Amino acid sequence: MNQTQNALAIAEAIHQGKTTAKAIVSQTLKQIEQRNPNLNCFTAVTGTSAIASAEKIDQGKHPGILAGVPFAVKNLFDVQGITTLAGSKINQDNSPAQEDATAIALLKQAGAILVGTLNMDEYAYGFVTENSHYGATRNPHDLSRIAGGSSGGSAAAVAAGLVPLTLGSDTNGSIRVPAALCGVYGFKPTYGRLSRAGVFLFVSSLDHIGCFARSVRDVAAVFDVLQGADPKDPVCTHKPIQPCLSQLEGEIDHLRIAIAGDYFQQEAEPEALEVVATVAQALNVRQTITIPESDRAKAAAYLITASEGANLHLHNLKSRPQDFDPATRDRFLAGALIPASWYIQAQRFRRWYRHQLQQIFQQVDLILAPTTPCVAPKLGQTKMIIGGEEVLVRPNLGRFTQPFSLIGLPVLSVPVLGSKKLPLGVQIIAAPYQELLILRVAHFLENRGIIGTYSLI
Amino acid sequence: MNQTQNALAIAEAIHQGKTTAKAIVSQTLKQIEQRNPNLNCFTAVTGTSAIASAEKIDQGKHPGILAGVPFAVKNLFDVQGITTLAGSKINQDNSPAQEDATAIALLKQAGAILVGTLNMDEYAYGFVTENSHYGATRNPHDLSRIAGGSSGGSAAAVAAGLVPLTLGSDTNGSIRVPAALCGVYGFKPTYGRLSRAGVFLFVSSLDHIGCFARSVRDVAAVFDVLQGADPKDPVCTHKPIQPCLSQLEGEIDHLRIAIAGDYFQQEAEPEALEVVATVAQALNVRQTITIPESDRAKAAAYLITASEGANLHLHNLKSRPQDFDPATRDRFLAGALIPASWYIQAQRFRRWYRHQLQQIFQQVDLILAPTTPCVAPKLGQTKMIIGGEEVLVRPNLGRFTQPFSLIGLPVLSVPVLGSKKLPLGVQIIAAPYQELLILRVAHFLENRGIIGTYSLI
Repeated sequence: MNQTQNALAIAEAIHQGKTTAKAIVSQTLKQIEQRNPNLNCFTAVTGTSAIASAEKIDQGKHPGILAGVPFAVKNLFDVQGITTLAGSKINQDNSPAQEDATAIALLKQAGAILVGTLNMDEYAYGFVTENSHYGATRNPHDLSRIAGGSSGGSAAAVAAGLVPLTLGSDTNGSIRVPAALCGVYGFKPTYGRLSRAGVFLFVSSLDHIGCFARSVRDVAAVFDVLQGADPKDPVCTHKPIQPCLSQLEGEIDHLRIAIAGDYFQQEAEPEALEVVATVAQALNVRQTITIPESDRAKAAAYLITASEGANLHLHNLKSRPQDFDPATRDRFLAGALIPASWYIQAQRFRRWYRHQLQQIFQQVDLILAPTTPCVAPKLGQTKMIIGGEEVLVRPNLGRFTQPFSLIGLPVLSVPVLGSKKLPLGVQIIAAPYQELLILRVAHFLENRGIIGTYSLI
Repeated sequence: MNQTQNALAIAEAIHQGKTTAKAIVSQTLKQIEQRNPNLNCFTAVTGTSAIASAEKIDQGKHPGILAGVPFAVKNLFDVQGITTLAGSKINQDNSPAQEDATAIALLKQAGAILVGTLNMDEYAYGFVTENSHYGATRNPHDLSRIAGGSSGGSAAAVAAGLVPLTLGSDTNGSIRVPAALCGVYGFKPTYGRLSRAGVFLFVSSLDHIGCFARSVRDVAAVFDVLQGADPKDPVCTHKPIQPCLSQLEGEIDHLRIAIAGDYFQQEAEPEALEVVATVAQALNVRQTITIPESDRAKAAAYLITASEGANLHLHNLKSRPQDFDPATRDRFLAGALIPASWYIQAQRFRRWYRHQLQQIFQQVDLILAPTTPCVAPKLGQTKMIIGGEEVLVRPNLGRFTQPFSLIGLPVLSVPVLGSKKLPLGVQIIAAPYQELLILRVAHFLENRGIIGTYSLI
């Protein structure tokens, strides 16, 4: 596979007979074999079944929009016949999954071909993908740097061009942060819009699934495929499917767009704010809005994450703490000690914050904010200087993503071009279920060369 | 007021010109003056405004179904011009309420006349109404015994015949327990069905309001008046009003009724189970059903109560612990120390338990269970013998009521006659929003003399 080729281009080439699914998949597997050892994106490669699927695609005219397109998934998605690791050693004791997660089944129905599972922070609890059991995933743009997390394997695999599409999950920023640090698109639709059936959960009230891709059209195509009610997921909302790929060209002149101010412009490196300014300028946006108490939103997200996460793993924390990743274990143990009153206060704040955003979305349609406060830190780096102050890396990479996932808003992190430096992203945030507005604006920006997947140097 | 007269009879007598609202209210105020010092039901008497309201009623033909009927409210309902104590000393520092609680406003619109506010456990946290600031409310059937709680004043005032109607609140059994121990009707409709606007909350996800009365027809009349959506209460559901008083005579032969077994027949005095058998026999009920894990439902209710209650009062617990009732303070402090993981587990269990009851209500329409495990304990009594075992009084009076309020089911506690002993009650429980079924069955039982308000000896 040509690493710059996107998913729809691959499907089109196969459809037109310029290549075959088997050729694509074979080339993909070869690339993974050659380049993954340096990157450490994959934890399992499903080569045999991928080749078999490709042969089936080649035998008939598969009608799916992604026919013959290779994809891979964060290893917390159930893949039939494979044990769902969720980045842990403990889960190795579990039986192989009985069936594919709904999202995988939908992509396969659309003709996409699963080629493997991807590395992540243990139990999705982290922003770095430096996994003590399965190793760190490296940033394809600088192998000495992290890919971000927790869906680090998913972001790096797309950034490296190993596969054009991957699935990930986002609880506090776990799709958006690695997408930004790896220079690709990372999309987290509205909470509950996509089925989580067959996904190993982390914090049920915060967990979203979403995708990584190399173009806005690919993001829209995957979103179209994944939408729809799912009786297997009690949290999945029953919203009608809104086809986005066919509507990307819609008018955007009327949209009211604002830059998130205050909290979202503090404790960030100048370059992280410059990319927001770049996008704002391209859209002729001058308005800045204040989202009140966003520092508390970050704190509430942390409290809820630690508390619910600890509840889920309490039995193993007590019976086999030595089998956790040390970084994750400490956070879970801290979560187990949080008083209920703090958790309840965080949930009360969350309702209040959601109400604030509802008010703001009566004035604006979209909000722009940086995805991360800085470019990818070095592997093993624990501290960084931001705004002249030394801060810890791990708890600060998600400071701009956490407030929005706390209340389930749809967000696309877009890679902003125009700099020779390492990748950086901007979040485009909308009111619940307004994913189409986000994708239209991103499509506009991409067409004008403002945003796009970073090429490998 | 004749203590055996019920609300609708009073309204009818006034309507027919046999008496006047002023005569009724004057007599009520006199009774309160004479008899309340022994009972300690009232914390405030609104004599002047009650007389003025009565004069207004007498000036014209008030169309309300409760025109001229005196009523009183647990002192956690806002009464315009009075400080809402919620049984506490701390709340004495608050300003007087700006307006009446919605439930009070609705009763006044129906012509009822507020004569005062009633004693309760501090912040509604208790089953005994032995309030360290305002004294214990005594049981009208035996002044050496408790009235039950937390709506003890509301139950005792109706049982003593001081007023025919009162309002209370029920979080874990705070309407049903004192209703049973005082020998009157206590009704807690479905969670969210009646507006809580203007009510000092205790545990938002568990708090219900409801009423005490001396006849099923009075209960139905009050329920009819209180139903309806209320924009002031975000929790109030928007169910259409279902008039019950006019439909009490409906057919009940087809109803599938079952006795709650296992947990609901254990750790109770024989007499508490005998009244269930009496009601079951009158209804020709033989089926017993098992509601699984009801002991855990009780535990979950306690955990959620303590955690959310502590969260609400955390500031005062830290800054002025000495101003709490000692019994309440200890529970709140314990609540402040509960780990978030336990609270989250209790909420997870709650969803599971709700689902179990949904399944059961596909097989049965109504469930019968004892209200309390025993008759009213003595004032100051801390331990009691139940089923041969010594147990603490306070945490066990609500063991049969807690599982049903945990999941918001509508319940009427009915006073069962036919014994010369102290009062005991039976809970009639329905699926959400099936209040009419409960009231019809109670009306049937009352007509046959099986249940009814206990006369004072």
